[in-house]
Amino acid sequence: MLIKVVNPNTSREMTAVIEHAALTVAAHSTTIEAVTARMGPASIESHYDEALAVPGVLAEISGADGYVIACFGDPGLDAAREVADGPVAGIAEAAMHAAAFLGRGFTVVTTLARTAGRAWDLVDRYGMSRLCRRVRACEVPVLEIALAEKAVTEECRAAAAKDGCDAIVLGCAGMADLAARLTAELGLPVIDGVAAATLQVQSLVTMGLRTGSRHEYAPPPPKPYTGPLAEFGA
Amino acid sequence: MLIKVVNPNTSREMTAVIEHAALTVAAHSTTIEAVTARMGPASIESHYDEALAVPGVLAEISGADGYVIACFGDPGLDAAREVADGPVAGIAEAAMHAAAFLGRGFTVVTTLARTAGRAWDLVDRYGMSRLCRRVRACEVPVLEIALAEKAVTEECRAAAAKDGCDAIVLGCAGMADLAARLTAELGLPVIDGVAAATLQVQSLVTMGLRTGSRHEYAPPPPKPYTGPLAEFGA
Amino acid sequence: MLIKVVNPNTSREMTAVIEHAALTVAAHSTTIEAVTARMGPASIESHYDEALAVPGVLAEISGADGYVIACFGDPGLDAAREVADGPVAGIAEAAMHAAAFLGRGFTVVTTLARTAGRAWDLVDRYGMSRLCRRVRACEVPVLEIALAEKAVTEECRAAAAKDGCDAIVLGCAGMADLAARLTAELGLPVIDGVAAATLQVQSLVTMGLRTGSRHEYAPPPPKPYTGPLAEFGA
Amino acid sequence: MLIKVVNPNTSREMTAVIEHAALTVAAHSTTIEAVTARMGPASIESHYDEALAVPGVLAEISGADGYVIACFGDPGLDAAREVADGPVAGIAEAAMHAAAFLGRGFTVVTTLARTAGRAWDLVDRYGMSRLCRRVRACEVPVLEIALAEKAVTEECRAAAAKDGCDAIVLGCAGMADLAARLTAELGLPVIDGVAAATLQVQSLVTMGLRTGSRHEYAPPPPKPYTGPLAEFGA
Amino acid sequence: MLIKVVNPNTSREMTAVIEHAALTVAAHSTTIEAVTARMGPASIESHYDEALAVPGVLAEISGADGYVIACFGDPGLDAAREVADGPVAGIAEAAMHAAAFLGRGFTVVTTLARTAGRAWDLVDRYGMSRLCRRVRACEVPVLEIALAEKAVTEECRAAAAKDGCDAIVLGCAGMADLAARLTAELGLPVIDGVAAATLQVQSLVTMGLRTGSRHEYAPPPPKPYTGPLAEFGA
Amino acid sequence: MLIKVVNPNTSREMTAVIEHAALTVAAHSTTIEAVTARMGPASIESHYDEALAVPGVLAEISGADGYVIACFGDPGLDAAREVADGPVAGIAEAAMHAAAFLGRGFTVVTTLARTAGRAWDLVDRYGMSRLCRRVRACEVPVLEIALAEKAVTEECRAAAAKDGCDAIVLGCAGMADLAARLTAELGLPVIDGVAAATLQVQSLVTMGLRTGSRHEYAPPPPKPYTGPLAEFGA
Repeated sequence: MLIKVVNPNTSREMTAVIEHAALTVAAHSTTIEAVTARMGPASIESHYDEALAVPGVLAEISGADGYVIACFGDPGLDAAREVADGPVAGIAEAAMHAAAFLGRGFTVVTTLARTAGRAWDLVDRYGMSRLCRRVRACEVPVLEIALAEKAVTEECRAAAAKDGCDAIVLGCAGMADLAARLTAELGLPVIDGVAAATLQVQSLVTMGLRTGSRHEYAPPPPKPYTGPLAEFGA
Repeated sequence: MLIKVVNPNTSREMTAVIEHAALTVAAHSTTIEAVTARMGPASIESHYDEALAVPGVLAEISGADGYVIACFGDPGLDAAREVADGPVAGIAEAAMHAAAFLGRGFTVVTTLARTAGRAWDLVDRYGMSRLCRRVRACEVPVLEIALAEKAVTEECRAAAAKDGCDAIVLGCAGMADLAARLTAELGLPVIDGVAAATLQVQSLVTMGLRTGSRHEYAPPPPKPYTGPLAEFGA
Repeated sequence: MLIKVVNPNTSREMTAVIEHAALTVAAHSTTIEAVTARMGPASIESHYDEALAVPGVLAEISGADGYVIACFGDPGLDAAREVADGPVAGIAEAAMHAAAFLGRGFTVVTTLARTAGRAWDLVDRYGMSRLCRRVRACEVPVLEIALAEKAVTEECRAAAAKDGCDAIVLGCAGMADLAARLTAELGLPVIDGVAAATLQVQSLVTMGLRTGSRHEYAPPPPKPYTGPLAEFGA
Repeated sequence: MLIKVVNPNTSREMTAVIEHAALTVAAHSTTIEAVTARMGPASIESHYDEALAVPGVLAEISGADGYVIACFGDPGLDAAREVADGPVAGIAEAAMHAAAFLGRGFTVVTTLARTAGRAWDLVDRYGMSRLCRRVRACEVPVLEIALAEKAVTEECRAAAAKDGCDAIVLGCAGMADLAARLTAELGLPVIDGVAAATLQVQSLVTMGLRTGSRHEYAPPPPKPYTGPLAEFGA
Repeated sequence: MLIKVVNPNTSREMTAVIEHAALTVAAHSTTIEAVTARMGPASIESHYDEALAVPGVLAEISGADGYVIACFGDPGLDAAREVADGPVAGIAEAAMHAAAFLGRGFTVVTTLARTAGRAWDLVDRYGMSRLCRRVRACEVPVLEIALAEKAVTEECRAAAAKDGCDAIVLGCAGMADLAARLTAELGLPVIDGVAAATLQVQSLVTMGLRTGSRHEYAPPPPKPYTGPLAEFGA
Repeated sequence: MLIKVVNPNTSREMTAVIEHAALTVAAHSTTIEAVTARMGPASIESHYDEALAVPGVLAEISGADGYVIACFGDPGLDAAREVADGPVAGIAEAAMHAAAFLGRGFTVVTTLARTAGRAWDLVDRYGMSRLCRRVRACEVPVLEIALAEKAVTEECRAAAAKDGCDAIVLGCAGMADLAARLTAELGLPVIDGVAAATLQVQSLVTMGLRTGSRHEYAPPPPKPYTGPLAEFGA
C-alpha cells in the first residue's frame, strides 16, 4: 500500500517532520511518500495562504492508494476527494475524529490566533462542536514551530490544567514530533494529526473503502482552464 | 463609490449577465466594474473547479470601495476579506441573507445536483439551516443556464408548489436575468444574488463599514510564494 | 420610494434620533417618514413593555413601500409582515445580518441587562448563534441613552478589547448617533440597526421584493376585535 | 390554591371548553378560575391576531397562585412571567414538555396551516426540535374546531399511521375535549395542553416554585403608557 | 394511584430521604411506594456505577401506576419505559423540565465533578442546551451529601451570584431535603427532582397518559438471558 | 498488540462472525481475542436488552491493549472507558466516524425498526447529525441476520438508490460478512463497524493513545456492590 502524504506548503523542512511522523506509525507493508507542494506559499498562516495552497495540493493527488493532506486547515480536502483514486484524510479531520474516541472534550493548540477561526470552522464541519473545548494559540509562526517546543508545551500544559479537556489536538503539522513526549509528560492523550491521518487512510484502504463517488464526489466534469492554472484543466 | 463585481469563471458571456444585474439595482452614484477572472476554469461545477477558481478571484480584489464575488459557491470569500480594502459579499451569502427578511423559508434552485453539497455547506455557515427548505437542481450545466430558462422556471414552479417556501434563491449567477420575471410570474419573491450582493456592499460602504481586521481578517503576513502562483506572494 | 421608520415607543426625542440615522444613509430618491407610536409605553425595557408596544407598531404599518421597526427587540415583526404592503425589517435583524458580512463574530452592546434574554432570542431566531459572542449591557435606561455616550463607549471598548469580536452591534435605536464615531475610534465596524434596516428595506424595494405571502405571511383572516383594540379588527 | 386559566381570545364558548378541561384534572383542593380576554380578537389565527391578543392576556395576570395561558401560541408568556405573582405556563409549552416524557417523538395537530410557523417557533424555543416530528393542520378555523371532531380525528389518525410518533399534541385549546377519546381510540397518548398546563402550574405551586425574578423576569420598570393602552402603564 | 419511587442505589438512608420528598408533594389520593434497589452499587458516582445500577432499577418496574427513577443520571430510563405499565420519569429529566417553566436558564449543582459529563449528556438529550448555564460540583461523595448541607448551600449561592441563572436544579436525590430552604434563602427557585418527578408522573397518570408503545417503546421481544441476570429473561 | 473484541450478546455464532471480521483487517502483529458475554441476553433488540447486556460487556474489559464493543448500540461504552487499561471503541461509533471520511452522508441499515431510536441517539452523540441521512431497518431479528443476506442487500440497494448517501453503515455486528460484497456490488462504500472499530483501536494503540483519565473517565471510586452483581464491586 502506498500512501502519499502531501505537505501543502513549500517548506521541505516541514515535509521531513511530516514524513517522520507518518513513517513512525505506518505498517511495515505501507509505503509512505511524503511530498512538498510545488507551488504556493512558504507557510499557511491566513485564509489567503490556505486558499492559494490548494492548487499545490491538488497537483499531488494521483498515483497512490490513499492521501493525507498535512496542514491543519485541511486545504483542498473536498476537491481532493473528487479527483483521488483512493481515500483522502486531512490532519485536522483525522486528529479530531481520533480525539472523539479518547474522551468527552479536546482542546486544540495551534500556531497563530488568527487561524483559530478556521479551526472552529472545521470543528463545526466535522461535527465536533460538543467536543472542542477551546482553541489555544502559541503565537508562534508556522515555520518557527519546530523551534518553539517550549511555547507549545506551555500552552498544552495550560490546556490540561484549565480546560477540563480529556485530550489535546496539536494544531500544526510542524508539531508532529512533540505528541509522544507531551502525552507522557502531561498524562493525557496528545494527538498529532499526521499520524492520525496516516493510520486513518491506511485503515480505509485496508477495508477496501474510498470516497463514495455516485454524487457530489464524482470526478469533476472536464473543461478548459486558463492562465497559470491551465495545467489543471482538460 | 466603485464596486467591483468579480466573475470567478472565465466566461465573458456570464460576466455580461452579471454586470447587467448589478447595474440594474445600483444607485446612480455607484460605479459597477464587472471583471472576468483571468485564470482558472471556464465554469464552476465541482469542488475542484471552485478551489481552482479562487486564485483568479483573489487577483481581482483591489482598487475598489467594495467587492462582490459572483459565483454561488462564494469562492475565496474569507481570503478576499483579508486582503480587501472594503467590504466583500458573496452572492450566495447575500441572497440567503436577503431571503431571511422575506419569510420563514426559502428553496435554492441551482444548476447541477452535484453542487448541492456546497450549497448546504453555505446554508450552514451562514446560519440559514432553519430557513433553507430544499436545494433543487435543474441539471443544466453552468454555461448553458442562460439558454435554459424553461428548466429553471419549471424547477422554481415546483419549489413554489411543493416546498412550502416563502422565497426562492437562484443558485447561479447565470440565472440573474430571470429573477424579476419569476417573481412576477410565481407570486413569491425570487432572489438573484448578484443584485442582492451589489446592494449589500453598497449599503455597507454607505454606512462606512468594512470587514473588521483586528483578528482573523487582518492582512495576511507577507511571505514568498513559489511556482505559477508566485505573483501572489510578497 | 417611501420608507416608514416606526419608533415603537412614544418618545418623540428618540424618533428624532432615528429619523436622522435613516436620513443619513437613505438614497436621495428615498423618502423617510419617521413616526412615533401613538399608543403604548414611553420606552421598552421589559418583555411587558415590548408586548404592549406591538399594537402601536402595527397601527403604523400602512401607506409606504417598506417599513422599519426601530426598536432592538423587533416588536411585532411577524405580524407586521402579514399586514404590510412592502418589505419590513427590524433593527436588530438588520444589524445582525449586516454584522454577518463583516467578520466571524459580533458583540451586542445594549441598555439594560434584563433585555439580554430577548437579544439572545433574536440571535437564535436569526441564525446568528455562531456569530454572537456576547451581549453586553451598559445598565443605562433607554430614555437616558442619548446622554450616556460615555457608558456606551466604554462598553464598546471593552467588547473590542476582550470579546475577540470583529464587529459591534448597537443594541438600542437611541444609540444610532454613535455608530460612526465609535467605528472610527475603536477601529472595528460598529453597526447601527436603524441605518442597516433602512438600507435593507431600500435594497429589497429596489429589487422589487417583499415578504412572500403564499403561506404563513398571507393577510390575516378578518374578524371582530373587542375593547380598546377594536380598531384593529374587521 | 387558585389557578387562573386565561382564554386569550374573546370567545366564551371556547372558555367553557377550557374550563372543563382544567377542572377535569385539577386536584380537589385547587380552584380553577377560567376567564375570557376582555379585549382583542375573537379568535387567534395569525401572528397579527396573536400579537393583539397579548394585552387581553396581560390584563388577567393577577390575583391567583398560578396562571395558564390557554392558546397554543402561548401569547404573552414572557411578559406574563414578569408580572405574575406565581408560576405561568402556556398550553403549547406544557403539552410539548408532557410529550417529552411519553416517547421519542410527537406530532402536533393544529387548526390552520398558516399557524404552523408559530408552532415550529415554539418547538425550537422549548428545546423540542429533536422531538417534534411534524406539525399537521386540519384547515379548520379556530371557532369551528369544536364542531370538527371528524377532521381532527382523521388528522390524528394520519399522524399515528405515518409519522412514527409516540404521542400527539393537540394544537388548539378548542380541541381539549377530544384528548381522552383519541388516546383510547388511537392507542397512543394524545395530549391536551390545557390539562397539561393546569397540572404543571399546580405542581409548581405545590413545590413552592415560581419564575425566578432576579434577572430578566424581574417586575418591569414602571412608566407612563399612552393611548388605548394607558391602563397598562404606571 | 400508586407511584413507585425507585432508589437506584442500595442505600436505605437515601431511600428515606427520597420517600419523604415524594410524600411531601404527592396528592392525598396518591400512594407513594419508595423502594431500594436490591442489587448494584451502594452509590452512583461513575458511568460504571450507573450502568451497573440499571438491573436493580429494572427489577422494580412493575406493579404500580407510574414510576420515578430517583437518581440524577436517570439510569435505565429508556428500558424502564419499554417494560413499565404506566408513565416513567427520571429526576434529572423532571427537574430540568420543571426549570424550563421558571426562567431562561438554570444551573445544576451536583456531587462530584466527574459526573458532570453525564449531566451534560442529559441536558442535551432533554433539549435543555440553551437553558443549562453551568453544572457545578460540590465534590462531596453521594452518601455524604446529606451531611454536606453547607457545601451544597455554598455552591448554590455561587450559582445564584455568578451564573445569571433564574433557577437551580439539585443534581442528586440526596439533596431533596434542601430545596425548600434554599429556595427561600436564595430568592430563586431551587428544584428537587424527586418532587418534580413524582408530580410529573402523578400528572401524567391523572391525564390518563403513558409512554407510547407503538414503536420504539413496545414491550421487548422475550428471549433467554444467561448467568446472574437470567431472572430478567423469558 | 492484543485487542479484545467483545460480543455483548451470548450467541457464539455471532462471536465467530465478529472474530472473522476483526481478523480480516488486523495487522499481522495484532492478536485478536474475540469473547462472548458470559451473562445477559441472547440478542440485543431493545433498550431493555441493551441495558442488561452491559454487565456482561464490563466483565470482559481487562487484560488487553485495547477493546472493541461489537454491538451497534455500543452498550457500556462510557463505563468501559473508565475501567479499561487501553482505548475502547464501539462499532457504531467507529463505523460512523469512518463514514465521515468517505463522503457527505451515510445511511444506516439495521435490523429492527424499534432500534432506530438508539441509532439516532448515537448519531447525535457522535456529532453525526449532518451526516446521517436515514436509518433503515430490514425487520430481521438479530440472530437471523446471518441468514438474511437478501433482505440486507435489498435495503442497502434502496439506500443507494434513494437516500443520496455516499456511504452505507451496517447496523449490526451480524452483518459484518456482507460489507465487502456490498461495497463491490453497489458501487459505494459499505462499512462494517467491527472492522472499523478493530482498526481504530489498533491505530490508537499504535499512536500510544488511550482514554484521557484526568476527569470523567478516571477509574471509578471503589465501593460495595450487592446481589447478583456483587462481583463488580470492591
